[in-house]
Amino acid sequence: MSDLLSKAQKVKAVATELGNKTTQQKDAALRLIAEQLRNNVKDIVEANQLDITNGKEKGFHESLIDRLIVNESRIHDMADALDQLTSLEDPIGEILESWERPNGLKINKVRVPLGVVGMIYEARPNVTVDAASLCLKTGNAVLLRGSSSALHSNKALVDVIHQALQKSDLPPDSVQLVEDTSRETASKLFKMNDYLDVLIPRGGKNLIQTVVEQSTVPVLETGAGNCHLFIDESADPEMAIPIVVNAKTQRPSVCNAIETVLVQKDWANKHLSSLTTALKDLDVELRGDERARNLDESIVPASAQDWETEFLDKILAVKVVESVEEAITHINKYGSKHSEGIVTTDDRHVVQFMNEVDAAALYHNASTRFTDGFEFGFGAEIGISTQKLHARGPMGLPALTSTKYLIYGEGQIK
Amino acid sequence: MSDLLSKAQKVKAVATELGNKTTQQKDAALRLIAEQLRNNVKDIVEANQLDITNGKEKGFHESLIDRLIVNESRIHDMADALDQLTSLEDPIGEILESWERPNGLKINKVRVPLGVVGMIYEARPNVTVDAASLCLKTGNAVLLRGSSSALHSNKALVDVIHQALQKSDLPPDSVQLVEDTSRETASKLFKMNDYLDVLIPRGGKNLIQTVVEQSTVPVLETGAGNCHLFIDESADPEMAIPIVVNAKTQRPSVCNAIETVLVQKDWANKHLSSLTTALKDLDVELRGDERARNLDESIVPASAQDWETEFLDKILAVKVVESVEEAITHINKYGSKHSEGIVTTDDRHVVQFMNEVDAAALYHNASTRFTDGFEFGFGAEIGISTQKLHARGPMGLPALTSTKYLIYGEGQIK
Repeated sequence: MSDLLSKAQKVKAVATELGNKTTQQKDAALRLIAEQLRNNVKDIVEANQLDITNGKEKGFHESLIDRLIVNESRIHDMADALDQLTSLEDPIGEILESWERPNGLKINKVRVPLGVVGMIYEARPNVTVDAASLCLKTGNAVLLRGSSSALHSNKALVDVIHQALQKSDLPPDSVQLVEDTSRETASKLFKMNDYLDVLIPRGGKNLIQTVVEQSTVPVLETGAGNCHLFIDESADPEMAIPIVVNAKTQRPSVCNAIETVLVQKDWANKHLSSLTTALKDLDVELRGDERARNLDESIVPASAQDWETEFLDKILAVKVVESVEEAITHINKYGSKHSEGIVTTDDRHVVQFMNEVDAAALYHNASTRFTDGFEFGFGAEIGISTQKLHARGPMGLPALTSTKYLIYGEGQIK
Repeated sequence: MSDLLSKAQKVKAVATELGNKTTQQKDAALRLIAEQLRNNVKDIVEANQLDITNGKEKGFHESLIDRLIVNESRIHDMADALDQLTSLEDPIGEILESWERPNGLKINKVRVPLGVVGMIYEARPNVTVDAASLCLKTGNAVLLRGSSSALHSNKALVDVIHQALQKSDLPPDSVQLVEDTSRETASKLFKMNDYLDVLIPRGGKNLIQTVVEQSTVPVLETGAGNCHLFIDESADPEMAIPIVVNAKTQRPSVCNAIETVLVQKDWANKHLSSLTTALKDLDVELRGDERARNLDESIVPASAQDWETEFLDKILAVKVVESVEEAITHINKYGSKHSEGIVTTDDRHVVQFMNEVDAAALYHNASTRFTDGFEFGFGAEIGISTQKLHARGPMGLPALTSTKYLIYGEGQIK
């Protein structure tokens, strides 16, 4: 039998109480969770071993097994992240605006928790602790729904969280893990508007797409990044080439890595071969349009599909363009509105690029790899929003908050 | 054949251009629309007559006919509202935050338009001009989908808008009206994630519910208000009674009117009859729980359904409660998270009410009727959000905006 409804009721029941806890109480609970994690390494690792063994039996890809692993060092990383979270400012209770109306009404706009956050994610047990801790810090109760392949690990981690919360001033029911990982239960989760204030998917494109399509609960969409760099005519190759190389190869599997480089034709005539040499030296496969291939025969032909693909691998599409206009048109057609960059010394092109490209983060003369809550200095990251409502780009703690208007009168009527 | 896709393509095609127009250009266009409305009163009224005649033939309720009417005075009101809109601050381009990272990257967070706004609404032709003008002011292209019963009026109004935009610096395609008002077309509209950045329903509960359930495009939910006032033991009847009367009767058909009054038992023992007399004098039907009916026999029994009903009429549910705690529990169970009020002189109860009631606007000693963008001083209102993401409560122009991070470097790589 599904535990979905009972767990949803539990988090909903404590959300108001949790939302009114002080920063001190919340931070103390986070420290207790960190301590409990460090004290329970053995139990967690044992539970994780069951998931690893199952995963290997099922023939999971090596990279998937790697994501599943919770070892001593990763547990200490989780605990350290919890301790660091206590040093961040608590957004809850902040008075964002305050004004008085001519009729004497005093209006305060204050930050409040969202209430109950639903988190649906794939085989990364670290998300369990990460999501729970960010939600607790912002006074949100959280209903976690991880993957069946990480169920033993997730249960062990939530057990540890519950042990810590028992010793804290926060309601232990604030964090609940749905253990029924069936699709039917997920479908029900998507419709729990009476219990969830937001649903956040963390995982691959298919998961996010499913949630966006099926959820009636408001969704914070994160993830997919089909990112580009445009090298303008005036770009210094000594700056442009390292930026492209970094944005493609420093960690190809992440959303803020680039998938296509757009090269202005005159720059391409002079410098494309230096760029492709640098990339090929790092084993990057290049797929190009005809103009790029005319300049470098080692580039294989790009298919129409390639322009819209997030390779997440050492593959880069290469297109020679006439101008910044053509680059912008290409990006707005194929990009996923995540991170886009221009390398140029032409100020007018910078302005045009910044104004006309529709994306969360736009870079001038820097790698797109900086789109990240930590790199932005937020100290925490819920994910990178690729939607335009509520939060866009790297989301720090305020993305897990809403607002309330508090209006104080002396008998005013309309 | 449906014109949905072609119209969606048109607005999408001009969204970037529109988004980069200056405040001056946008305000000039709004003034041109106002002028064109005033100069075309006759055509608009004639078109509207067709809708009115059709509506009467179909036996529409008088209140629905009233909403459909576009007469000379209402057209002048629309035009005046457009002129007023030009005096409001343009949120687009505002730098919300600006900081530098230790690696030298300069990050600006700036306000940008959402892009393309989808607006689906019922038989109120005034929404056509209202939605179009608020979107233009914020640099958003807009795809309008009104009701079939207002189609002639909507077409006439959009014709006038197009005539004005032709004379302006804004792309005339920025405002498009979908003329196919079939359900099938609406269903397609709900899935136009490639064209629409947000969908805003304006209308009754059923419309909003349908959009929330079916739309994969992010929705800005507005509307339903099951609002309460709680009269605490310490409330001065000379303040409490006028507030309840105002909140119920000043305009019963709107979302910020109250539907239930919760009365603390000791206050009820002393003053309930004064309250009910005042309400009955204004022809308000009272439906109460047993304790209320024991104090006033003229109160009819409330059904379980009544506590969750937005009457939008001169009907008020009355419940006697033990305490502020019971009031809060009732409100959080039945309320629609819109506007809730407490009348009291007890400061601790104010704090408790403000902290624990989950709603967009919370009032101490004032009528709930003030939940309104104009009453809040925003100068414009897109609607009143009852969701927690993006915008909560009365939405002014900033609710129609998103943000972009602009990052300036000198070759930084990660």
